Amino acid sequence: MVAELISVGTEILLGNIVNTNAAYLAEQCAALGLSLYYQTVVGDNEERLCGAVKEALGRSDIVILTGGLGPTKDDLTKEAVAKVTGRKLVEDKKARKVIEDFFRARQTDPKDITKNNWKQALIPEGALVVENKNGTAPGLIVREDNKHIILLPGPPGEMKAMFAEYIFPYLQKQNPGIIYSRMVKLCGIGESRVETMIRDLIDGQTNPTIAPYAKLGEVHLRITAKAEDEGQGKKLVKPMIRELKKRFGFYIYSTNERETLEEVVVTLLKEMNYTFAAAESCTGGLLTARLVNVAGVSDVLKQGYVTYSNKAKHKLLGVPKAMIKKHGAVSEKVAYEMAKGAALNAGADVSVAVTGVAGPDGGTPEKPVGTVFIGCSVKGQVTVREYHFDGSRQKVRENTVVCALTQLRECMLTRPKVK
Amino acid sequence: MVAELISVGTEILLGNIVNTNAAYLAEQCAALGLSLYYQTVVGDNEERLCGAVKEALGRSDIVILTGGLGPTKDDLTKEAVAKVTGRKLVEDKKARKVIEDFFRARQTDPKDITKNNWKQALIPEGALVVENKNGTAPGLIVREDNKHIILLPGPPGEMKAMFAEYIFPYLQKQNPGIIYSRMVKLCGIGESRVETMIRDLIDGQTNPTIAPYAKLGEVHLRITAKAEDEGQGKKLVKPMIRELKKRFGFYIYSTNERETLEEVVVTLLKEMNYTFAAAESCTGGLLTARLVNVAGVSDVLKQGYVTYSNKAKHKLLGVPKAMIKKHGAVSEKVAYEMAKGAALNAGADVSVAVTGVAGPDGGTPEKPVGTVFIGCSVKGQVTVREYHFDGSRQKVRENTVVCALTQLRECMLTRPKVK
Repeated sequence: MVAELISVGTEILLGNIVNTNAAYLAEQCAALGLSLYYQTVVGDNEERLCGAVKEALGRSDIVILTGGLGPTKDDLTKEAVAKVTGRKLVEDKKARKVIEDFFRARQTDPKDITKNNWKQALIPEGALVVENKNGTAPGLIVREDNKHIILLPGPPGEMKAMFAEYIFPYLQKQNPGIIYSRMVKLCGIGESRVETMIRDLIDGQTNPTIAPYAKLGEVHLRITAKAEDEGQGKKLVKPMIRELKKRFGFYIYSTNERETLEEVVVTLLKEMNYTFAAAESCTGGLLTARLVNVAGVSDVLKQGYVTYSNKAKHKLLGVPKAMIKKHGAVSEKVAYEMAKGAALNAGADVSVAVTGVAGPDGGTPEKPVGTVFIGCSVKGQVTVREYHFDGSRQKVRENTVVCALTQLRECMLTRPKVK
Repeated sequence: MVAELISVGTEILLGNIVNTNAAYLAEQCAALGLSLYYQTVVGDNEERLCGAVKEALGRSDIVILTGGLGPTKDDLTKEAVAKVTGRKLVEDKKARKVIEDFFRARQTDPKDITKNNWKQALIPEGALVVENKNGTAPGLIVREDNKHIILLPGPPGEMKAMFAEYIFPYLQKQNPGIIYSRMVKLCGIGESRVETMIRDLIDGQTNPTIAPYAKLGEVHLRITAKAEDEGQGKKLVKPMIRELKKRFGFYIYSTNERETLEEVVVTLLKEMNYTFAAAESCTGGLLTARLVNVAGVSDVLKQGYVTYSNKAKHKLLGVPKAMIKKHGAVSEKVAYEMAKGAALNAGADVSVAVTGVAGPDGGTPEKPVGTVFIGCSVKGQVTVREYHFDGSRQKVRENTVVCALTQLRECMLTRPKVK
């Protein structure tokens, strides 16, 4: 089956936002075994939007639209799909109730709900309403002559949650036979090195196929098999996963699609009965926040210190003032002391400390922007490593967080288990 | 003049990479005052690529293609443009020399240059060759019946450098007049309420136009004027900005396109000579990290405490254990004490404290998932507010951060200046 994406929004045409929705959906379509030949972006203009929908319906079986479902006058996706498929827009009771409940939960008097919000309860007649757990605009599925038109909200958080929970299984059912797909997730190794190491597998691929995806600081390998049923799919994929484990060993942190690096780290902490503390300078809380992504982290997380200033490094972590003066706040010695101090003061078994030059200012010839020291303390044994990252302040900080998690995982795994 | 983008590459259709080129070019087109109605992505397939080029030429004056200029068999962009415009592909001497020089600079013997590289010296007859300072594939400009077809390499580093140096000035010459655009940024007010309050302005718009963009917890209004020069553009936009200030007053935190909410908060702290500390529970460091986005925050940021556990709230912030037991960690009283304790222990003038139920577990009938208390202390005066957010754990936390910044800004602005 052939799928096609249409992203709706003048903000994409103006370059205000990067179209990450399209990349996400393209990857999902690949995972579903759908062929994707076109992605289109159109603005909030009914005529052009209708034209794009009509064209897509003429050449694809599944048309996925994102954006333009909100309450404003500029939101025209439902109107366009209704027009192209010759349907009326009618109010859906369930969708109306969702909006009422949404505002009731916010203590908004129903009569204070502005009128335009009710627009979100209108649906093309006969459409299937898809629940939106993260907003007021529901998703919609319109069936038209054996074709499927799928309307999803534009905000990535709403769109992705809805796609994963409802649309992925829906599309899976439409496609005869199945696509069985597994993800092998690596950290601590670069994309081009991974690619070189699997070049022969890519060149020789038939079924299953293998495709690398570069994520920030990580590489994910998707293995996809076309099969008659799940059992056959698993059987096809298994030898490839075994081969990858042989080649990459330790660099593989998970073979579970939904498991994140921070989840793996938190699970490891729990398994080893370790408590955790973080001390952050340039990352400013990002590292701790990443671990707090994991529900249930409270079992292991003692506390986090954001010690951006030298004073705070001294006061909260006990880093000697003279050491900061002599070696600089961004130094191996200070990272060492920060890690030690965080574990000690928090009474934690394990700690991670980060100090670096995130830029754009503050770089020197010896310590240019992007220089970062990460210290890990595991049961009193401290390891410090020096890193050099490229790119913006934001990118340096995000890379630092991934490397800190990678280093922490490695330090825990290479130590004997202590109860 | 109307422009259109075509991104060529199967890797985009598979979701292997995010199409950041399109966002960059879209923003550049907006800055050039070009109307952009469509962006298309097609794979490395000659038939579909020819179709996309033909369609684009039928509806736009300027067609910008990225990708597919490299040495491999999959690179088909020049072939497609030559076919659609009925031209032959001929070798360009200058382009051939660039390839020779490129490899000579890398100490490659000319006879070791693989044959496919010379493909990059082929151009559609009559095309203008554009220098590529960062790679071997030159850019091309093909003029066809008063239309401009612009071919750019796919790697963002090569594409952007080439666009900025050669293509932007080329296009500027084609398009008389300019587009002058300003952004008005609001926080603490919802998208649909903003929309209702500017409905008359949108309905009556001609030049300038006004368009709302919903960001997480914020609304941005873009005002765009077509003008002969910058002076006239400013004059056209000014009354609209004045009108918006009259309507939204305090909710507008910036009229500077590049200024973020966290920058406004840090600037305010600096102007008022205030130092700052944060105490975070459910946000786990996200709030402090957001402020650390701002380079130079070290002047005001004392420290951040991530006190996810009750123990840490007591130990680092002095929240009485009995109070946590009686009212719960997520309560007005605890938020109050956290804000007080953070300011006191960090020796800061201003503090923000956050405690909430981010979910997915931990909700109760009285305090369902999404319940958050935010406390702000400004010179000893503490304000606590209760919020209710919807959605995933991640979304609750991100919304909390924006509301904390909004509340902090408000608390500082509504207090007399203290030196």
